Amino acid sequence: MENLPHGTPLYAQVEVALAADIAAGELAAGTQLPSEDALISRFAVSRTTVRKAVENLVARGLVEIRRGKGTFVTDARIQQQLTELSGFVEDMLALGRHPTARVLGKRIVPATDAVAEQLALSAGTEVYRIERVRLADGVPLSLDETYLPLAIGEKIVRHDLEAEPIFALLEDKYDLPLVEARYQLEATVADRRVAQALDVAVGAPIFLIERTSYCAGPRPIDYEKLYYRGDLIRFSTLLRRRPRG
Amino acid sequence: MENLPHGTPLYAQVEVALAADIAAGELAAGTQLPSEDALISRFAVSRTTVRKAVENLVARGLVEIRRGKGTFVTDARIQQQLTELSGFVEDMLALGRHPTARVLGKRIVPATDAVAEQLALSAGTEVYRIERVRLADGVPLSLDETYLPLAIGEKIVRHDLEAEPIFALLEDKYDLPLVEARYQLEATVADRRVAQALDVAVGAPIFLIERTSYCAGPRPIDYEKLYYRGDLIRFSTLLRRRPRG
Repeated sequence: MENLPHGTPLYAQVEVALAADIAAGELAAGTQLPSEDALISRFAVSRTTVRKAVENLVARGLVEIRRGKGTFVTDARIQQQLTELSGFVEDMLALGRHPTARVLGKRIVPATDAVAEQLALSAGTEVYRIERVRLADGVPLSLDETYLPLAIGEKIVRHDLEAEPIFALLEDKYDLPLVEARYQLEATVADRRVAQALDVAVGAPIFLIERTSYCAGPRPIDYEKLYYRGDLIRFSTLLRRRPRG
Repeated sequence: MENLPHGTPLYAQVEVALAADIAAGELAAGTQLPSEDALISRFAVSRTTVRKAVENLVARGLVEIRRGKGTFVTDARIQQQLTELSGFVEDMLALGRHPTARVLGKRIVPATDAVAEQLALSAGTEVYRIERVRLADGVPLSLDETYLPLAIGEKIVRHDLEAEPIFALLEDKYDLPLVEARYQLEATVADRRVAQALDVAVGAPIFLIERTSYCAGPRPIDYEKLYYRGDLIRFSTLLRRRPRG
C-alpha cells in the first residue's frame, strides 16, 4: 500500500488506498465499490478492518451506501463558486474541506514579460516566486505559482507558507487589503512538471487560472498561476443578461 | 492544399494553408513564420503570391511583422469576457470575429437525469436536442449541444439554425427574453465525438461550459453544453474582494 507512517492502523491504510483509487479515477464516480470479500482478499485484512475503512470513506463523502444496492463512489468533484476574490484556504473551508499546503520552492527570479506586465514592473526586475501544492483533504488539488514584488515577497517568504495563507499575510500582517483581481481562465493539459506536482498523468486536464490581485490604488500585488486538477473541480457562477434596448 | 472551391486564387490557398497550420498549432504562437523562400518552395508559387498571402494573415491578426526580425505568429487565442450572459454570435461580433455555424443534428430525445434537472422536467420527458459546430473566422471553436423543452424546441428547429442564433429567436421571435444563466466551468479533454467535431486530436484540451439560461419566473428555457477548443480561447473576469469585518 502507500507510503504511510510506520504504525498506521490497517483500516487507515485501506482507506488511503481506496481514496487514492477514487482520486486517480480507477474507481470512477458512480461505480460500485468492490465487495467486502473482494477488499478482504485484496488487502489481506479482516472484515472489521474493511468495514471501518469504508465507514470512514462514507464519512468523508467519497462513497455512499445505497440501500439494497451496495456502496458507490460519489462524484467527488469540488464545486467552487467563482463570484468573488477568495484564496484557496477560504475556498476549501467554505466547502468543508481541510486545506493543507506543501512548499516546493521560493526564490528570487527575474520577471518574465508576462510576470512583469501583470505586476506593472519592467521585464527582468527581480520578483519572488513561490511554488506550492495545495491539498484538499490530503489530495493535491492545485499547483500554485505565486509572483510577488521583491519588497513584499521578502517579508512573505519569512513565514511558514505551509501554515499561513499569503492572502491572510498580505491583508492581516502587512496591512495590504486586497480589493479585486483579474481572472483569466483556460483549459489546458498537464506537462511533466504539473503532472508530477499533482500526481496525475502527463496530458491530464488542467483548469488554469491566472490571477492578478490588486490592493488599493489599484496596485497589482500578487500574480498567480493556479493549475487545478480538471477532474476534481468545477467552477460555477451566475451571469445576468444585459438589459436590452 | 485544402479543399477549396475550384478557382480559388493561389494567394488565398497559401493563406488558408498557413492559417490552418496556425490553428492546428503546427505554427505555434510566438514562432517565426518560414522565410519567403521556404514558402515559395513549399507551395510552388511566386514571391508575389507568398507576399499577398502573408499580408492577408497580417490583416487578420494571425501573424505580425517585427521590424528587422521577421514575421511571427501572434497569440491568436480569443480572449472572451465572462461577465454577462451572452450568446456565441454576440461574443464573436464583440471580438471582431465572423461567426458561422454548422448544424450536425436536431432531434427529440428523452431527457437524461442531468438535462431533466437543469430544465426542471421529469427524467425521460421528451426534449429537443440540437447539435451545432460554431466557427470563428471559419475555424471550428466550439461544439454546442442545446437542450430545449419540447414546446419551444419545436418552434426553434423550424428556423435556419446555421443563420439564426437561438438566443435571438427566443428573445426576438418568441418573446422569451433571457434574464440570467447559471454557468458551470470545467477543464476536460476531447473524446472521439468532440475531437471529430472540432477537428482536433482525441485528448486535446476542452473548456467545457454547462449553461442553463432562464427567462422570467425564473423558468429554465435552454440548457447547453459548450465544448470550446481549449487552445483557442481564454475567458476573463474581474472579481471583487468581499469587504471584511
